[in-house]
Amino acid sequence: MSYVKDFTWNKDMTAGELAGSLGSVGFQGTELAKAAAIVEKMKETGAKVFLTFTSNMVTSGLRGFFAQLIELGVADAVVTTVGSVEEDIMRASGEQFAIGSFAANDFALHEEGTNRVGNLYISNKSYEKFEAAMGTTLAALYAHKKTWTVSEMLREIGLTLSDPHSILHHAAKHNVPVFCPAITDGAFGFHLFMFQQDHKDFMVDVVRDFQHILECTSHDEKKGIICLGGGVSKHYAIFTCLLNGGFDYAVYLTTSQQYAGSLSGATTSEAKSWGKIKDDSDAATVIGDVTITFPLVMVKALEELAAKGLLRQ
Amino acid sequence: MSYVKDFTWNKDMTAGELAGSLGSVGFQGTELAKAAAIVEKMKETGAKVFLTFTSNMVTSGLRGFFAQLIELGVADAVVTTVGSVEEDIMRASGEQFAIGSFAANDFALHEEGTNRVGNLYISNKSYEKFEAAMGTTLAALYAHKKTWTVSEMLREIGLTLSDPHSILHHAAKHNVPVFCPAITDGAFGFHLFMFQQDHKDFMVDVVRDFQHILECTSHDEKKGIICLGGGVSKHYAIFTCLLNGGFDYAVYLTTSQQYAGSLSGATTSEAKSWGKIKDDSDAATVIGDVTITFPLVMVKALEELAAKGLLRQ
Amino acid sequence: MSYVKDFTWNKDMTAGELAGSLGSVGFQGTELAKAAAIVEKMKETGAKVFLTFTSNMVTSGLRGFFAQLIELGVADAVVTTVGSVEEDIMRASGEQFAIGSFAANDFALHEEGTNRVGNLYISNKSYEKFEAAMGTTLAALYAHKKTWTVSEMLREIGLTLSDPHSILHHAAKHNVPVFCPAITDGAFGFHLFMFQQDHKDFMVDVVRDFQHILECTSHDEKKGIICLGGGVSKHYAIFTCLLNGGFDYAVYLTTSQQYAGSLSGATTSEAKSWGKIKDDSDAATVIGDVTITFPLVMVKALEELAAKGLLRQ
Amino acid sequence: MSYVKDFTWNKDMTAGELAGSLGSVGFQGTELAKAAAIVEKMKETGAKVFLTFTSNMVTSGLRGFFAQLIELGVADAVVTTVGSVEEDIMRASGEQFAIGSFAANDFALHEEGTNRVGNLYISNKSYEKFEAAMGTTLAALYAHKKTWTVSEMLREIGLTLSDPHSILHHAAKHNVPVFCPAITDGAFGFHLFMFQQDHKDFMVDVVRDFQHILECTSHDEKKGIICLGGGVSKHYAIFTCLLNGGFDYAVYLTTSQQYAGSLSGATTSEAKSWGKIKDDSDAATVIGDVTITFPLVMVKALEELAAKGLLRQ
Repeated sequence: MSYVKDFTWNKDMTAGELAGSLGSVGFQGTELAKAAAIVEKMKETGAKVFLTFTSNMVTSGLRGFFAQLIELGVADAVVTTVGSVEEDIMRASGEQFAIGSFAANDFALHEEGTNRVGNLYISNKSYEKFEAAMGTTLAALYAHKKTWTVSEMLREIGLTLSDPHSILHHAAKHNVPVFCPAITDGAFGFHLFMFQQDHKDFMVDVVRDFQHILECTSHDEKKGIICLGGGVSKHYAIFTCLLNGGFDYAVYLTTSQQYAGSLSGATTSEAKSWGKIKDDSDAATVIGDVTITFPLVMVKALEELAAKGLLRQ
Repeated sequence: MSYVKDFTWNKDMTAGELAGSLGSVGFQGTELAKAAAIVEKMKETGAKVFLTFTSNMVTSGLRGFFAQLIELGVADAVVTTVGSVEEDIMRASGEQFAIGSFAANDFALHEEGTNRVGNLYISNKSYEKFEAAMGTTLAALYAHKKTWTVSEMLREIGLTLSDPHSILHHAAKHNVPVFCPAITDGAFGFHLFMFQQDHKDFMVDVVRDFQHILECTSHDEKKGIICLGGGVSKHYAIFTCLLNGGFDYAVYLTTSQQYAGSLSGATTSEAKSWGKIKDDSDAATVIGDVTITFPLVMVKALEELAAKGLLRQ
Repeated sequence: MSYVKDFTWNKDMTAGELAGSLGSVGFQGTELAKAAAIVEKMKETGAKVFLTFTSNMVTSGLRGFFAQLIELGVADAVVTTVGSVEEDIMRASGEQFAIGSFAANDFALHEEGTNRVGNLYISNKSYEKFEAAMGTTLAALYAHKKTWTVSEMLREIGLTLSDPHSILHHAAKHNVPVFCPAITDGAFGFHLFMFQQDHKDFMVDVVRDFQHILECTSHDEKKGIICLGGGVSKHYAIFTCLLNGGFDYAVYLTTSQQYAGSLSGATTSEAKSWGKIKDDSDAATVIGDVTITFPLVMVKALEELAAKGLLRQ
Repeated sequence: MSYVKDFTWNKDMTAGELAGSLGSVGFQGTELAKAAAIVEKMKETGAKVFLTFTSNMVTSGLRGFFAQLIELGVADAVVTTVGSVEEDIMRASGEQFAIGSFAANDFALHEEGTNRVGNLYISNKSYEKFEAAMGTTLAALYAHKKTWTVSEMLREIGLTLSDPHSILHHAAKHNVPVFCPAITDGAFGFHLFMFQQDHKDFMVDVVRDFQHILECTSHDEKKGIICLGGGVSKHYAIFTCLLNGGFDYAVYLTTSQQYAGSLSGATTSEAKSWGKIKDDSDAATVIGDVTITFPLVMVKALEELAAKGLLRQ
């Protein structure tokens, strides 16, 4: 049995020390430190690690952190939604997202061509630039072959990007597949559609990506998941891994809770009833905004993994 | 300016009266009555209505209500996730989902082949029966043609179902398209994949469904959305409608809130910054579990619409 | 084992039927119907029932419903915060609260003397009228005796009110004590302070009210609680009842959840670890805004209790 | 206009750097960094600072941090609930609180005399020891005088404690008053009641504490509040300060939101409609569990304040 320890600040506290000391504070602080310890175990045991996140997190400054985690070898596969892809590409082409307010005048924003995501703003110009780039990109892909799975397509796009903070860039460079089961749900999808209007034999084969995600890992390997938020990113990763025997390690960071039965709020315990997470797995759930909890979990884990030489140089 | 009215119970209160009187109670009660009034307006103005929901709501008894709303002509298009499709088919084939507990022993449930969704249980046997049916279904589809959009496929399946509480049945019968942008994210997707392994030219064209959803409505028509929960169902409907000028009427029922920037918690105001909802639209957001709030909103709206002869006979 | 039933609407559905049918829908709908059944049991077994609520619910139209529940004999003791007392008195004197917006311009509201509680508005004039009345009220109390417990004081005030929708009126009339452990936390407290400035021997004895709440019930009696929201109202009722052996029946309706360790979000299970609720008690928790969930729970329970002749005529 | 910056980890990151960099990440990270900046301003401008918190935070390891903040001169007045007082005294007498699980078997815990607060456990033995100490404490107070305000009483108790992590100890030592408007709502209240049974003239004067809290600050002074969670602690501080013209600086850290109209979820904007916070005040609200967000806000603020020599040595 461990006991609550009084938290006190000292001037020279490192970020990892802070995160570690929250473990003895209680409530979600304790869950957070537990999550960090499970991430460490994932890498120590050589587990294949799935990282899943929603697109609003890529609107935020976590985008560069996801890229860094791929670069450091923490993530072996990524599952996300199409907004993440769009915004990673926008940012890689130099576009910036402004920090505004949750209580903005949305009428005025619309008038000036600004789109709000929580307290962050994306300009219509970023979408226009993205549209122009997509024309070139899809033409190049099509010149190569007519039918693409999503993960193949995202890899090709990643190879064209050079931004050191880009998720797709590091994913392509380090052979980390990026899955996006709802590829048509956004501007990317609209551009696929427009391109297909002029190239009737252009085809995105979402079914065959099932094979690619199954091949990411095997029944016998240790498997771990770091799952940020919910939605199809979360479900696709845990459902496909179920077919390979389920996860040995699971860390959920989310704002949702289970009372309304949503998958986004489904706990790691609920996942055990499905076999998505093994009964004897190490699992933790941290409730709170991921822009705060995820950096904290990871600074603690990275500090330890760096010390043990378990990060890719 | 309207004022708070003291709520009092009387013995002969109808369900619609209850919902209506909540409008003068305040807080979410007021939002709920406002949502009902907006749904009424949608139908009075002849707006095309999109109904979106997540699969956990189909696990619940709202499934039959969604089917009834299609039958009554309230919904002109449906967007959902693939779990909804799977579970509607299971239920249509006679399977039942048990009511259990949020605090179940998930280890024990897993041992006995029971999968938990909040406080509801789905048996492995229901999935097995579904798997067997999918083999036959996909063979029949393939015999007809090799490449399918998702909405075409779901319509064909709906035509084979006869359960009067089935969403797909009523959707097919009344020519209400069902869109499912992440069709591979679940057991249905796995069976598509298995079938494709043996039939290499079997193809699901998710890109072409973009055309179908755009054709559901036009720039000049009034458009409304009843959006339950978040995720890709919500985003696909509002994003594609944006391309047709955005919604005139919008009702969001959700448990999520905007502080973490998720699309699921994004408000109707945020949607206005994007043009997804028109600046001068009628919009309401009700925070709470949809299993409670949605029936309340709709009993009020249906009572009025029935009185005005605006429901399909 | 019970099973999910497809919810369908029919024209003549009563409010109680609606609430009852939610029990077979799942998620919080199921909890809601369970809560209604437990309230019925409380009255069938002759349990003493504590009703606790926070002051924002009295700002809302639930105020008149609380009064009606006291009148109908559903509640045997009330615990609340001082804002409830203030606003019940304001409303009893004819003041009205306006229905506004959560997204109001609070600067403009302040300029015009309007105070916001969620989407409800209380005018400065209502506070001024309350202040004037308090002067007279306290003088009358003081003329009677110098030291008062809170529940005695609220009973005397209730006897002076005649509004049929007033909580204090019906509580006084039916000998239902109203406890308010933080009596100084609001305008009422400020007026007590101002009065004491001029009458140094005027004393509010909060300690002696402990005896009164303990005497509301005995160790041997059945005890039930209907607990709306959290805070001191909730804690005072469950803590004092613990001293009498804990509750046999407990229904919590709240928006808070347990992940941050707050009492407001503490579950009925957590209460069992303290003995606040008996291990073998009937208990249910419904998550959601009480302006919606509470009327639903109660219309179902009241319909049954009326049919069984268990309501006070 | 500032822009989102990609967060990246580096080995030597201090805790303050981490918190600072979250400001450019977005969503609640941005609010968090804003909150830290406002706390800095409070001290730079010489504002009187109110610190309010709920008792579950004193169950957690934040207890020692609150004590440290008083010691460092960050807080000039404290408002809390009675559980905080009880548990600070227990801990000061050597009792420990165990770290357990949110999903504990509460029946088993009750059997073994363990009381759960979220994922933390308090033993019955700690309450028994507290009971014994209270007898002596109250006798000593009574020997001194018969009538006490709460803040006077808590100061006397604080003077008897020597634990360097005790809130009451540092508050008494540094003349920081501790207000507790609902002093009878817990075991402390029960012991007051038992003592009064034997000493009929023992009186706790809650009304006169109103004067003490009003005297903490003046209309002309700058005033700031750091408000953790909601309930009476929050309301008492902002209501009484309203009488002195309202706060110039306000930082709210909470898990509650405004949709149900509760005071706990009331925003700093809503507070402006009441004049509780000045229209032109600096205000920030961070949504999330305080065990995580509060240390982050403060490590950033303390780092800056230390550098500027604005902390008490």
